Amino acid sequence: MNLKTFIRDIHDFPTTGVVFRDITPLLKDPKAIKYTEEALLDLVGNQKVDKVVGMESRGFFFAPMLAARLNAGFVPVRKPGKLPFATMRQDYDLEYGSDALEMHSDAIIAGDKVLVHDDVLATGGTAQATCRLIEKMGGEIVQCNFLLELDFLKGKDKLGDFEVKSLLHY
Amino acid sequence: MNLKTFIRDIHDFPTTGVVFRDITPLLKDPKAIKYTEEALLDLVGNQKVDKVVGMESRGFFFAPMLAARLNAGFVPVRKPGKLPFATMRQDYDLEYGSDALEMHSDAIIAGDKVLVHDDVLATGGTAQATCRLIEKMGGEIVQCNFLLELDFLKGKDKLGDFEVKSLLHY
Repeated sequence: MNLKTFIRDIHDFPTTGVVFRDITPLLKDPKAIKYTEEALLDLVGNQKVDKVVGMESRGFFFAPMLAARLNAGFVPVRKPGKLPFATMRQDYDLEYGSDALEMHSDAIIAGDKVLVHDDVLATGGTAQATCRLIEKMGGEIVQCNFLLELDFLKGKDKLGDFEVKSLLHY
Repeated sequence: MNLKTFIRDIHDFPTTGVVFRDITPLLKDPKAIKYTEEALLDLVGNQKVDKVVGMESRGFFFAPMLAARLNAGFVPVRKPGKLPFATMRQDYDLEYGSDALEMHSDAIIAGDKVLVHDDVLATGGTAQATCRLIEKMGGEIVQCNFLLELDFLKGKDKLGDFEVKSLLHY
């Protein structure tokens, strides 16, 4: 199945000059969503996974189902103030300014083997901050995987220590 | 499995006097997340489903995996401005003020049988607005299901025309 036929290009979203890769046509197609689930699992292979960490909000589409299929737990990473229990926080730089992510402080146990999943790898800031949070909590990252990767933004360079795999490249 | 043992009560979140039912302990437990998936599928039974609609952000945890299991597509409902393609919008009232939800205008085809899923049914405002959007687009709602329902807020009353089922009641 050629998944790229289910990705819709939206010009000038969210800002002028940007081509946004819209994955909603893939999500709403019964065969494409199942195929994507299987293909993401194939990227992981036989590696043992204890927790799948997914980033707010579009990382939530596939990360929980990968967890259920891998007999792992799912952990959400969210913007500050959204998680109700005690959190760990990681700040990170944007092109202009900075942002932060939080994870529940009991989400990862030292020694947990962790799969990080998001829909898109762009500049890698979010993924890098997520990996730092996981490592602070003693987790071991077995793979960072993505539905699609914007190669020209070189996000992979920020994740140099980890196995990075993406289904689609742009 | 008693899923209530995986729900954590957080007092005074997000505001004083509110008891927030935190589902993250359930999500991070491999057995509990799988059990919840199966139990939500059991609520649907043998009803035919073409699309599963999930609401931002916590509705995204289970709605896509239910779609994949039901051989259906998944459709996200989001806050205004988040979806990149042409959208349909539904305003709804809050206790103080109002809010709005959007769905892509090509997300539902007339005659689609639709399952609506969110993590929590509280006052029912979000679920009601979502059902209105789906019906405007010609979809037929076969069930609204929830991981947990706050019975004392009577959200079910706002969904009077539809089948409403929840795994846990508080």
